[in-house]
Amino acid sequence: MYEKTTAIQGFPFYKYLTDDQKEMLANNSEIKTYKKGEVITGLINHCVGPFLILQGEVRAIIDDENFREITLFLLRENEIGLLSAACVLEHITFDAKFVVETDSVLVTAKSCAIKKIMEANAEVRCVIFETLTDRFSLCMTTLHGLLFTRYERRMAAFLVERYVYTGETEFDTTQEEIAKMTSSAREVAGKTIRQFAKDGIVEYSRGKIKLIDINKLKDMM
Amino acid sequence: MYEKTTAIQGFPFYKYLTDDQKEMLANNSEIKTYKKGEVITGLINHCVGPFLILQGEVRAIIDDENFREITLFLLRENEIGLLSAACVLEHITFDAKFVVETDSVLVTAKSCAIKKIMEANAEVRCVIFETLTDRFSLCMTTLHGLLFTRYERRMAAFLVERYVYTGETEFDTTQEEIAKMTSSAREVAGKTIRQFAKDGIVEYSRGKIKLIDINKLKDMM
Repeated sequence: MYEKTTAIQGFPFYKYLTDDQKEMLANNSEIKTYKKGEVITGLINHCVGPFLILQGEVRAIIDDENFREITLFLLRENEIGLLSAACVLEHITFDAKFVVETDSVLVTAKSCAIKKIMEANAEVRCVIFETLTDRFSLCMTTLHGLLFTRYERRMAAFLVERYVYTGETEFDTTQEEIAKMTSSAREVAGKTIRQFAKDGIVEYSRGKIKLIDINKLKDMM
Repeated sequence: MYEKTTAIQGFPFYKYLTDDQKEMLANNSEIKTYKKGEVITGLINHCVGPFLILQGEVRAIIDDENFREITLFLLRENEIGLLSAACVLEHITFDAKFVVETDSVLVTAKSCAIKKIMEANAEVRCVIFETLTDRFSLCMTTLHGLLFTRYERRMAAFLVERYVYTGETEFDTTQEEIAKMTSSAREVAGKTIRQFAKDGIVEYSRGKIKLIDINKLKDMM
């Protein structure tokens, strides 16, 4: 379905590659499918290199030994994951993980090849570090919210974001999934959804949520 | 005391500048002194551009409208601050601040000049984004600790870091300052220090802390 030499052209640094580097990238890339729930990489331990999402959604998280986790950001089609290449990015010293959110198809590039290309090509290096800076911003915005913002506002922001992205007012999801996406406990997510339902902002029944008053949700953000 | 054309050579990207760019940087730089407690920049509003610390210490924070604040990292002599240049780094979209921790001397570079140089010089751009990625790592490590680590461990880590950096086992500081550096409330910091004192790990009297058992502190980290 996907052809590797075409797929790798989606890497944002592709246009800066020399012909030799394009070939090197192609020879060191692979198209793989991942199932929902799979962990693509434990950053430091299993360095898979950068990946580009051809199809699906991947969630970046941090967690602790007690399996509590925080969602940093969500990557979608045509976006690249870089924290999975921490082994070649010596500037990254913390341990994040990628969890496959919906069944996905990714093209991954081997770290060793990327390292070589980065060393030889300042433009590629720039694009990679610029993208990391984008992720930095996303993470900081998320964590700022988590530390300073009331949960109702974060829940409203999550529902609006989902609506804006999909264009749908109704989607299948469990309280557990919502809790994960908003980095909270299932009980807290459930309680808030029930309150939203009581206030006429959403309708919720097992595994399905329907947005009733999107303007109200936007006001709450 | 400090000479501008010498001082700017401390910017990590200096060696990649052309002669013209060196001159441009010199013409757009300024040496300034800052008093303890001064806020160097509210990122989005007052863009002072990148700075290099010639003397002193500067703390990067995020805060909310209720004046709660979190210390992201501390910069010292010869380190550069970049979040103060957010206006030219479109990849940074969150609002951090720099607070002067001890009386400081900084050399600041005007954002507009840095923007021009970055556009023309990929190596400079790389160094800047690489440095931002370093900061990313620092922030994530701090926030990971804040979200997942018991306060006693964070306090121990703070005291050990201070000891390693200064080589001193005794330093002047208030509970309030310690609370700021460890992103906690004064009451919590005070209670923890009293507990450490009770356990024979430190001695504390008004405004002065003395580390007694550094190995114990290290074990706690």
